Amino acid sequence: MNNKPEPEKGGRAVIDKLEEKCLEKEIVFAGRMLRMDRDRVRLPNGAETTREVVRHPGAVGILPFKGDELLLVRQYRYPIQQATLEMPAGKLDPGEEPLVCAERELREETGYRGTLEHLVSIYTTPGFTDEIIHLYKATELVWDPLQADEDEFLNVVSMPWAQAKEQALSGKLNDAKTMLAILLLLGKEQ
Amino acid sequence: MNNKPEPEKGGRAVIDKLEEKCLEKEIVFAGRMLRMDRDRVRLPNGAETTREVVRHPGAVGILPFKGDELLLVRQYRYPIQQATLEMPAGKLDPGEEPLVCAERELREETGYRGTLEHLVSIYTTPGFTDEIIHLYKATELVWDPLQADEDEFLNVVSMPWAQAKEQALSGKLNDAKTMLAILLLLGKEQ
Repeated sequence: MNNKPEPEKGGRAVIDKLEEKCLEKEIVFAGRMLRMDRDRVRLPNGAETTREVVRHPGAVGILPFKGDELLLVRQYRYPIQQATLEMPAGKLDPGEEPLVCAERELREETGYRGTLEHLVSIYTTPGFTDEIIHLYKATELVWDPLQADEDEFLNVVSMPWAQAKEQALSGKLNDAKTMLAILLLLGKEQ
Repeated sequence: MNNKPEPEKGGRAVIDKLEEKCLEKEIVFAGRMLRMDRDRVRLPNGAETTREVVRHPGAVGILPFKGDELLLVRQYRYPIQQATLEMPAGKLDPGEEPLVCAERELREETGYRGTLEHLVSIYTTPGFTDEIIHLYKATELVWDPLQADEDEFLNVVSMPWAQAKEQALSGKLNDAKTMLAILLLLGKEQ
């Protein structure tokens, strides 16, 4: 199979160079967790515009299996004013390797140490942030807790794998990384 | 099947109330596309902290099928300094219904009008933004282009459905919404 997708036939003219070049950087907000940049950039047609970018340290998410049960965390997500069910996850500390971060977050959020396998790494929403999340599967869980972050409050819930798949397919789960990770494992099962 | 997941047995104590209450809102940046809030909030344990939230108007993403070919768009994503292959997508205009937005974005980005079916709606990264993306499948495509946004440069590429599934499973695609939408349809095929 030819692995390079072809420009669509009969559609619009193809643009040769898509790149946007940074002309000037400006940090418009630097907070505790996030930074917002507003960069002046040169567009492919030579015009100028500004791009607003949320700078993020990167993160990990882990699907931990305790036998045939998936461990998820229920927590209040302030930005959307509701509690969600998500895979354990967390931000990279400065200079931290994703695998080390995944092991730490799993112990902090669920209390378990596990054997980790990298699945994929995804850009959550590349239109406005550089956030990348490295997704892992964890098995062979052993109780070995670490103290959780002081401003993090969550409950670990156990869900049969069959139910997790059903909730990802139906959209009852609604956190993108969690749905994606479950659907990825479902796709690999086939 | 009991559809309510249970707190994990043998794990940590369960927190009864997870909610975080807003005490004070502050807009720290209001840009062309994004707004950053820094709210003072009351945590479940009574302590106070700040939450940084990127306010987003919401968006749509569309998986358009031309027979057995999926139409994707290649575009430069300035935040991650690379060109990506993604499903056609775009932000809601103020007051715009997601279905109307999906029809408009499909015509702007690919030139086609289609019959749209809502799949799921997902929170892209609810730890720091309220962005929700409504995902659709489009079929029965008919050429009926709309002018694209003036600062958007993209090429439409056609990819066999079998190849799209393989690239979502392998992580060769790396945009979360696009992978999720493809894996969701793959899961429903089984």
